[in-house]
Amino acid sequence: MSTRESELKPMDAEQLRECGHKTVDFIADYYKTIENFPVLSQVEPGYLHKLLPDSAPTHPESLQHVFDDIQDKILPGITHWQSPNYFAYYPSNSSIAGFMGEMLSAGLNIVGFSWIASPAATELETIILDWLGKMLKLPEDFLSVGQGGGVIQGTASEAVLVVLLAARDKFLRKVGKNSLGKLVVYASDQTHSALQKACQIGGIHPENCRLLRTDSSTNYALSPNVLTEAISRDIANGLIPFFLCGTVGTTSSTAVDPLIALGKIAKSYGIWFHVDAAYAGSACICPEYRQYIDGVEEADSFNLNAHKWFLTNFDCSALWIKDRNALIQALSTNPEFLKNKASQANLVVDYKDWQIPLGRRFRSLKLWMVLRLYGLENLQSYIRNHINLAKHFERLVTQDPRFEIVAPRVFSLVCFRLLPASKNEALANKLNHDLLNDVNSTGKAFMSHTVLSGKYILRLAVGAPLTEERHVNAAWSVLQEKASALLGTL
Amino acid sequence: MSTRESELKPMDAEQLRECGHKTVDFIADYYKTIENFPVLSQVEPGYLHKLLPDSAPTHPESLQHVFDDIQDKILPGITHWQSPNYFAYYPSNSSIAGFMGEMLSAGLNIVGFSWIASPAATELETIILDWLGKMLKLPEDFLSVGQGGGVIQGTASEAVLVVLLAARDKFLRKVGKNSLGKLVVYASDQTHSALQKACQIGGIHPENCRLLRTDSSTNYALSPNVLTEAISRDIANGLIPFFLCGTVGTTSSTAVDPLIALGKIAKSYGIWFHVDAAYAGSACICPEYRQYIDGVEEADSFNLNAHKWFLTNFDCSALWIKDRNALIQALSTNPEFLKNKASQANLVVDYKDWQIPLGRRFRSLKLWMVLRLYGLENLQSYIRNHINLAKHFERLVTQDPRFEIVAPRVFSLVCFRLLPASKNEALANKLNHDLLNDVNSTGKAFMSHTVLSGKYILRLAVGAPLTEERHVNAAWSVLQEKASALLGTL
Repeated sequence: MSTRESELKPMDAEQLRECGHKTVDFIADYYKTIENFPVLSQVEPGYLHKLLPDSAPTHPESLQHVFDDIQDKILPGITHWQSPNYFAYYPSNSSIAGFMGEMLSAGLNIVGFSWIASPAATELETIILDWLGKMLKLPEDFLSVGQGGGVIQGTASEAVLVVLLAARDKFLRKVGKNSLGKLVVYASDQTHSALQKACQIGGIHPENCRLLRTDSSTNYALSPNVLTEAISRDIANGLIPFFLCGTVGTTSSTAVDPLIALGKIAKSYGIWFHVDAAYAGSACICPEYRQYIDGVEEADSFNLNAHKWFLTNFDCSALWIKDRNALIQALSTNPEFLKNKASQANLVVDYKDWQIPLGRRFRSLKLWMVLRLYGLENLQSYIRNHINLAKHFERLVTQDPRFEIVAPRVFSLVCFRLLPASKNEALANKLNHDLLNDVNSTGKAFMSHTVLSGKYILRLAVGAPLTEERHVNAAWSVLQEKASALLGTL
Repeated sequence: MSTRESELKPMDAEQLRECGHKTVDFIADYYKTIENFPVLSQVEPGYLHKLLPDSAPTHPESLQHVFDDIQDKILPGITHWQSPNYFAYYPSNSSIAGFMGEMLSAGLNIVGFSWIASPAATELETIILDWLGKMLKLPEDFLSVGQGGGVIQGTASEAVLVVLLAARDKFLRKVGKNSLGKLVVYASDQTHSALQKACQIGGIHPENCRLLRTDSSTNYALSPNVLTEAISRDIANGLIPFFLCGTVGTTSSTAVDPLIALGKIAKSYGIWFHVDAAYAGSACICPEYRQYIDGVEEADSFNLNAHKWFLTNFDCSALWIKDRNALIQALSTNPEFLKNKASQANLVVDYKDWQIPLGRRFRSLKLWMVLRLYGLENLQSYIRNHINLAKHFERLVTQDPRFEIVAPRVFSLVCFRLLPASKNEALANKLNHDLLNDVNSTGKAFMSHTVLSGKYILRLAVGAPLTEERHVNAAWSVLQEKASALLGTL
């Protein structure tokens, strides 16, 4: 694609075809060889600075040169989230359907801020979030037929932020904007840090963010009693409870907050109730897991990351809301340069008013392709297969008396740790910290950690699209081998 | 790719290759025929609902069926931003290099929230924003060598939001968080609505957002005197000026705020000075246009949308900041499950703390590919060619006495209108409103409008990658033809 200055054709269709085919082959070859790479990148901080020039080239470089650099300089710095040996954090699924959707979205390259900017982008999003809402058996007031509806956000962080802002402004309209310092947010201490960040952004005072303590007695779920006590205390002190975030599948240990009880409390106090099911929500398309979101009927908003465990390439976070006007009142602007007949007549949805940024990509395309090219039954099997692999891993851990399971496995995450010879917790933490480091340093598997009630714990999350039983077994072998080495040196 | 439930292989490399090649051909064929589509979609609100089923399929559908639906049901609802006849809003460039970068990013599908999650994603972003910063001759304190640095945001809306939050929290740390209601923001009334939205989100009181009036006497640029007066008045009233947004290339008419003068005022009052060059910043890689950001030396932050006029597919908004710690202090969280050696030792950048969401795509890849596959000189020619086409269009308008140029053309946007027979402004507005509607309804060209000093004005922005002189001429012919028809019926 090297071009002389006088003939730059940045969008020539035949050049696009040629370069696109080469890129497809590069990516397909990557997936063919993905198991050859260390899962966790083993480079040192600053490695790339030494490999690249200090400034952009004056003249074009060849495509082959760029591909060579990606192979030689970029891939070593990649942590391979799509590797079948990736078990860290939560998965971030790629799929052929999702990848094709991304290609089409990048190919059309529209910016769908309002309906008129590409009606198909807005309308497909509304329709597909209704489809997904029905798959999850969400109550109808989350669908587009009434006052609610779905919207694709980039991430769960943005989802919780926009609903927090909607709730904040709804309350401030009632109590006056100078009462911002009195607004109180509730959630468990297991809630994703995105909530804390949303509070920071929205100006909620840090001392008014109640991250209520949980422990193993509730399997790290929020206790309704603890919540009620906190709310009562705050009201007695003249504060204004306004937002409750419940989680289905917490990041540390997949704890499930009791939505039914929490929903009743939120309703009785008139508090906005948001349900974060970023990871575990996908499992709820299976009838046997739908119970975990029972109570969502009482929620005001519900969120699931299709980019985690639902074969939709990053980013694609599905948010449903019952009162879309609350969102629009918090986030709308109406500049002259965007005015148009359809918007002014209120005939259409303008998703710019449902999100932080103005511009937006055509993300519903990939979710639509995932739903159509795989279908509900395949997607259910996909989820069940990962959960079965996690059960399998859990059994392996249970059979080795040197290890213990630390929190109940609910979905596809197993929380476990290596036990020290003595009951010294500080030693146990050091041991597991070192074990994780030793395992990840092999490059053969990548898992992550958390801390629960002061215990350092290893997390193995099954969910990468290529993971099979042999990969889980291999990860377990590495763990056993490194554990033996560590215990042997004690 | 139809698969039986038992054999779902969502990431089989050979299936990926086959499906990827088909998708490349679909996109290449789209570009071959892009001029056949009406630029502005001509569908009616709700069109897609009638064409799609009510729920997701239980079983997989064939790839051909999905492609047929994209062709028959989606493309009619697309407004073709990549069409050479697209002249609305501002451009949103696609390019072969940018498209390949998107493919690679979607293919690797990593989530680069922190360095460890894929070191290459973080390090390439730092390096490439240094490259681009040098191309723009930004002062060194915006580069990564000192206390500053660059980061890719999704959009200019997110860029202005994060710096507003950084500034807000920096001030509140000094004056106390209960003074939020006293903080005042300054900008011209031509500033993008993203600033107003950022203020809403950050809890800045609407009555403390000074959108200072501009008019044709300054070509719609912010007057330093008007700014100084407003600041003095606010200080006298016990308010706290904290944020000034200057624009280089406003959305309505490419007005350029006087950065040098504004920077001096901001400095003398200790106000955070942000420069929004979302559209026009790209032109500043040409020595002859660099003057428009003279004064950026005094700014605290600077933003340019590479996805607008810089051949980098949406989204990719480059933000530079002098005091990266201000950003990090406003936006960081440090949950246990993300802790790792490199981050804890402060050896690396974790871009999660420079932005709203936690997750982030590998966007630097596409910008790197654009810079390398085109090179500085090609990119400069690309910009100059569009500006020359806009000059050409401006000459055409000037030669027809029925039209007038309404604001000076600075870059590649021409603001013009049709004059009515009498000097009736209401009639003029109606006439131009109808003219725009008539032109866009032909599907032969798409342009947009704005209002300046009460005048309804047409905007023709040159900048789509495929636009040539013949397309500009064709747009002008449609305008003349529709103008004649309208004037003939008066």
